[in-house]
Amino acid sequence: MGLPGEFGLIARHFRALAGEGALDLSDDAAILAPPPGRNLVLAADAVVEGVHYLPDDPPETVGRKLLRVNLSDLAAMGADPLAYLMTVALPRGTPDAWIAAFAAGLAEDGRAFGVHVLGGDTVSTPGPACLSLTILGTVPPGAALRRTGARAGDALWVSGTIGDGALGLAVLQGRLPPDAEGHLARRYRLPEPRLALGAALRGVARAAMDVSDGLAQDLGHLCRAGGVGATLDLAALPLSPAAAAAAARDPALLPRLAAGGDDYELLFAAAPGDAGRVRRAARAAGTPVTRIGHFTPGPPEVTVTGPEGGAVNLPREGWSHF
Amino acid sequence: MGLPGEFGLIARHFRALAGEGALDLSDDAAILAPPPGRNLVLAADAVVEGVHYLPDDPPETVGRKLLRVNLSDLAAMGADPLAYLMTVALPRGTPDAWIAAFAAGLAEDGRAFGVHVLGGDTVSTPGPACLSLTILGTVPPGAALRRTGARAGDALWVSGTIGDGALGLAVLQGRLPPDAEGHLARRYRLPEPRLALGAALRGVARAAMDVSDGLAQDLGHLCRAGGVGATLDLAALPLSPAAAAAAARDPALLPRLAAGGDDYELLFAAAPGDAGRVRRAARAAGTPVTRIGHFTPGPPEVTVTGPEGGAVNLPREGWSHF
Repeated sequence: MGLPGEFGLIARHFRALAGEGALDLSDDAAILAPPPGRNLVLAADAVVEGVHYLPDDPPETVGRKLLRVNLSDLAAMGADPLAYLMTVALPRGTPDAWIAAFAAGLAEDGRAFGVHVLGGDTVSTPGPACLSLTILGTVPPGAALRRTGARAGDALWVSGTIGDGALGLAVLQGRLPPDAEGHLARRYRLPEPRLALGAALRGVARAAMDVSDGLAQDLGHLCRAGGVGATLDLAALPLSPAAAAAAARDPALLPRLAAGGDDYELLFAAAPGDAGRVRRAARAAGTPVTRIGHFTPGPPEVTVTGPEGGAVNLPREGWSHF
Repeated sequence: MGLPGEFGLIARHFRALAGEGALDLSDDAAILAPPPGRNLVLAADAVVEGVHYLPDDPPETVGRKLLRVNLSDLAAMGADPLAYLMTVALPRGTPDAWIAAFAAGLAEDGRAFGVHVLGGDTVSTPGPACLSLTILGTVPPGAALRRTGARAGDALWVSGTIGDGALGLAVLQGRLPPDAEGHLARRYRLPEPRLALGAALRGVARAAMDVSDGLAQDLGHLCRAGGVGATLDLAALPLSPAAAAAAARDPALLPRLAAGGDDYELLFAAAPGDAGRVRRAARAAGTPVTRIGHFTPGPPEVTVTGPEGGAVNLPREGWSHF
């Protein structure tokens, strides 16, 4: 009997992504000897064509973004990446070249971040592509960063820059002119999981999460988890040159950058006296961090202050699927 | 800020499925202390509405089948179930009652099989529902059943009955009259992962896999993995009373039962002198097993002999997505 299509597809495109324990993707499941003395950290995120990425996004970046949004969850826990499983539902007739480029993107980022495929499934769908990834990482027992733990008086920090992802989506959808360097579109397509920073913040940050649904909305999660409020200072928001130029042209953009999604930066709380420890961790990780506010006694609400100091109401742009 | 829809949906329907390490589904990832002295076994399978299940299948059985097809992969490796992660892509407007029933099915089978949710993701899709599950299990180091290992002369065994799933699909699609007890449709919707048998076969079976794409096609995988051929005796195929009645009405059905999919039985090789050990393992697991052929010196091809003893060509019905 010949090998039917899906087995050939897996052999052609995905077997090269497999690593230790994957049994060459030829068995019913993978076998993994857990790293001794570590806890496992596990998360799963799915992306859907036309919802989480644009149908004409390059397939390389679709694969890399799928992996990176999952790696960002590990970063938020302070975990080191280990391996992943993936299920891929594709329309019949998806060009072989699309799948090859998707797999090449995964291979490139797999090498960059030190993760390989353990297993998965390839199926057809009459709808848009639906790609799901389960990431595994490790942390020393008890060392994982958690969303709970922020206290009133703690400083609120964020890594990198905020708003590029939301602006990049607007550029790709033709709602905003592109920046000359293509920085914004690139940041939408290729978020940067802050793994080195997450690991360096173990024992430093009191609470952490990654910013995926919009800074203000995600800060609300940190507040509810800690039973504290927070004040977010819009003027302190770290902006890339491209985002700063866009906000200079249209000042109404600034509050929307705190509400947009797709940042995949780390948002974290640290004791007020620990600014030096935070900056040393950031320097060691090679990742810029910025203090953008502080936590307050409850209720768990987010107050946003504008560049003139008064309270600002944010647009409700944080992404929700339902 | 209020909680947007997806967080409410997770709280209403999926939080009750969470267990140890899931951090109440409120963090970026789960934390799992791996069971000491065991290896992890991991697999991921996805199901798509209209491809792997019928749009009018009861949502309870959709959830249970999603979990069971993954548990069947653990059974094939001789692994004991531990926990799972799940991503759920649903059309906007999916009725809350559908999601509640889907989650209730998962809860029921989670209790029955001793697994809980560690984490996941809930997203919207403009296409059909696309449900992906990653299952975790454990085995003693070195004890996992593998597809490799069958030798010429080994006996070929299968658990349970074959063909019910494919017949059940035909019944639900109106291509075959239903049996009085509804056995066939039930077997299509609710496969039985042979976990107890898989665990009992550790150290007994030389090679094993689960039958999901059709007995003959999957036997081909065992042959290629072992570098051996196999002879499958159609007359020995274990049939349920409902399948036997259908085959008696239409003898042309018999070869198609060996080619259809959705059986989720265990197919395994054992040394010719180990029939007693196989039967004791099956008795201990409470799962019937039947000897249906034997392995031969290569090439890795499957020969099917019919009830009259001659070679039979099977229809190419084994499921392939591409």
